Amino acid sequence: MIESYGYAATKASRKLRPVRFERVGLGPHDVAITIQYCGVCHSDLHQVKNDWGNTVYPCLPGHEIVGVVDQFGDEVKGFRKGDLVGVGCMIGSCGECASCREGLEQYCEEGFLGTYNGPLEPDGRNTFGGYSSNIIVQEHFVLKVPRGLRPEFVGPILCAGVTTYSPLKHWGVSEGDMVAVVGFGGLGHIATQIAKAMGAVVSVISTTAEKEADALKLGADAFVLSTKKNQLAELKGRFSFIINTIPEKHEVDPYLELLARDGSMVMVGVLVPEPGWNQQSMIMKRRSMSGSLIGSIEETREVLEFCAAHGIHPKIEIVDIKEINSVFKRMEKKDIHYRAVIDMKSLELDRHVQQRDLGAIGH
Amino acid sequence: MIESYGYAATKASRKLRPVRFERVGLGPHDVAITIQYCGVCHSDLHQVKNDWGNTVYPCLPGHEIVGVVDQFGDEVKGFRKGDLVGVGCMIGSCGECASCREGLEQYCEEGFLGTYNGPLEPDGRNTFGGYSSNIIVQEHFVLKVPRGLRPEFVGPILCAGVTTYSPLKHWGVSEGDMVAVVGFGGLGHIATQIAKAMGAVVSVISTTAEKEADALKLGADAFVLSTKKNQLAELKGRFSFIINTIPEKHEVDPYLELLARDGSMVMVGVLVPEPGWNQQSMIMKRRSMSGSLIGSIEETREVLEFCAAHGIHPKIEIVDIKEINSVFKRMEKKDIHYRAVIDMKSLELDRHVQQRDLGAIGH
Repeated sequence: MIESYGYAATKASRKLRPVRFERVGLGPHDVAITIQYCGVCHSDLHQVKNDWGNTVYPCLPGHEIVGVVDQFGDEVKGFRKGDLVGVGCMIGSCGECASCREGLEQYCEEGFLGTYNGPLEPDGRNTFGGYSSNIIVQEHFVLKVPRGLRPEFVGPILCAGVTTYSPLKHWGVSEGDMVAVVGFGGLGHIATQIAKAMGAVVSVISTTAEKEADALKLGADAFVLSTKKNQLAELKGRFSFIINTIPEKHEVDPYLELLARDGSMVMVGVLVPEPGWNQQSMIMKRRSMSGSLIGSIEETREVLEFCAAHGIHPKIEIVDIKEINSVFKRMEKKDIHYRAVIDMKSLELDRHVQQRDLGAIGH
Repeated sequence: MIESYGYAATKASRKLRPVRFERVGLGPHDVAITIQYCGVCHSDLHQVKNDWGNTVYPCLPGHEIVGVVDQFGDEVKGFRKGDLVGVGCMIGSCGECASCREGLEQYCEEGFLGTYNGPLEPDGRNTFGGYSSNIIVQEHFVLKVPRGLRPEFVGPILCAGVTTYSPLKHWGVSEGDMVAVVGFGGLGHIATQIAKAMGAVVSVISTTAEKEADALKLGADAFVLSTKKNQLAELKGRFSFIINTIPEKHEVDPYLELLARDGSMVMVGVLVPEPGWNQQSMIMKRRSMSGSLIGSIEETREVLEFCAAHGIHPKIEIVDIKEINSVFKRMEKKDIHYRAVIDMKSLELDRHVQQRDLGAIGH
């Protein structure tokens, strides 16, 4: 056991108060770290307030941790006492599922073990985070801090930094890409710097006019106030990639419309679920939802050839054009299996019935 | 002028009634087609009822057209009288924008000209579709019907077929992929056959038990009733690709959750817009919305190196842990610019104040 001090919230107060507790003993693959700094992430606030309905109290937040190695287990190879190290959002994962084997522990199919408020161990133990004097973490989840980064800057990179770096890299943002960063807070202000360093042309979109100077200073090429509808409207179809960092419920339409054809908007703020459409479901598995509109003339040629080659036939019901209104009614009742096709010979026979004359207006 | 007969709806009745009208004369690049068959698409019904609020009356629907070439203009090179040809959803586009130059007329930045209810010409002319005796279409938008397809089967391929073929191809569906087709109507029943012919393992998800036999006969490997919540729950995380053909407002969550990590669900049914989130905006530009969750341990290593190499620093405010509750309040007021970082030395000084003892429960 290692004695530890920190700040935790109880269910009753939801205020952080001083606590003392003991960390479980150092295993052979574990590193014990004396914490120097810990960043305060917006999700710490959500978790303490139980906004996601999954908080276990007492809740001791903090997953932007930097400190020095104090002790380590017998099997630890990569660290020595005194090393400057970081710990981010995860301190464990199953190590065996497809995601873990691909090195994507954040998508562990068993769920990763969170640095705090992780799933409870069978013995009822909770995980307590970095708002504390020390932490014990298995070696795989401990990160060496490279030279050139001062310790106080490391914490936010471990959460806000990697949360924006990962999608910017995964979606292949590169030189000259038109990128928008929506929301200029903890995540947005780092995303702006990373996207810029990747060579993108970066626009920051924020609700707060006072942030313009900071955004430009940190490398943004443009700053747009989202509250000015005309400023947003001018940007329709402009961006190939949008990273949306807004941590609260909001209308996504005004941002979706800023995407060019084939553009992607990636949501990284974990929102409160909305009925019928839960962004968390997209986030937890890096899922995508897209639209697609008919197909090109070339693709239409292809699909005709494809259907001819593979003997694909729609299942059709041939109908008389004089019955078209009842066909429409049957469609509404899902009573057409699976496509009505009008035989235009039925129109020929109809040429001599009384017709309304529309004049010469058809294209 | 070419005399034409057909069925059109007026604003007053919204029922289709026999009409006669004249098509504008044949231009040098135009082909005049005598229509043999025309498919009845679900969007014909939406359009006649003005569900999308953009219908111009009289409205003469039909964009799954097959017929034979009757006349053609002087510059037409590719067609002869008597050729069996098709016309789908489009009869024109600007030809000059980036999308048109890439051969993606459906995403024309000026908007393509619809086969019916296209945007009005400056002289007030409307476009009238295939529920009629003939149509005049510029050569580029006329498709030769390959041998081996009987004319009555062609229409549905020109809309339902290409609308599902295009995303299945664009998202690279291939041998062995786990694909779900959601909705088994005009689009779904063709999508099932195309996906199967591409080598995918295809599950059909439908609200209608009676469709099971047809789905299996058309090649589906499995049929799932979406009304049985437990059947759906068993498929969580199963599919790499879902084509969602439901043409009406519905909850997307139950389907999103069936996607594996990095899976995509593509919406092809044009829905009535919902407040705050308009699927039409995704469809009209093939836009995507995705989620992304923090980043892997390897990516965390990378972002630390990346920030060190590029001199990227979060903009931080160092705070005392004793102030943490007021820091949380300031975060809620967006008063932290841009990341609070706790200096853990402030905790050291605090070790001797009264603390609640949590016991040995911390991980």
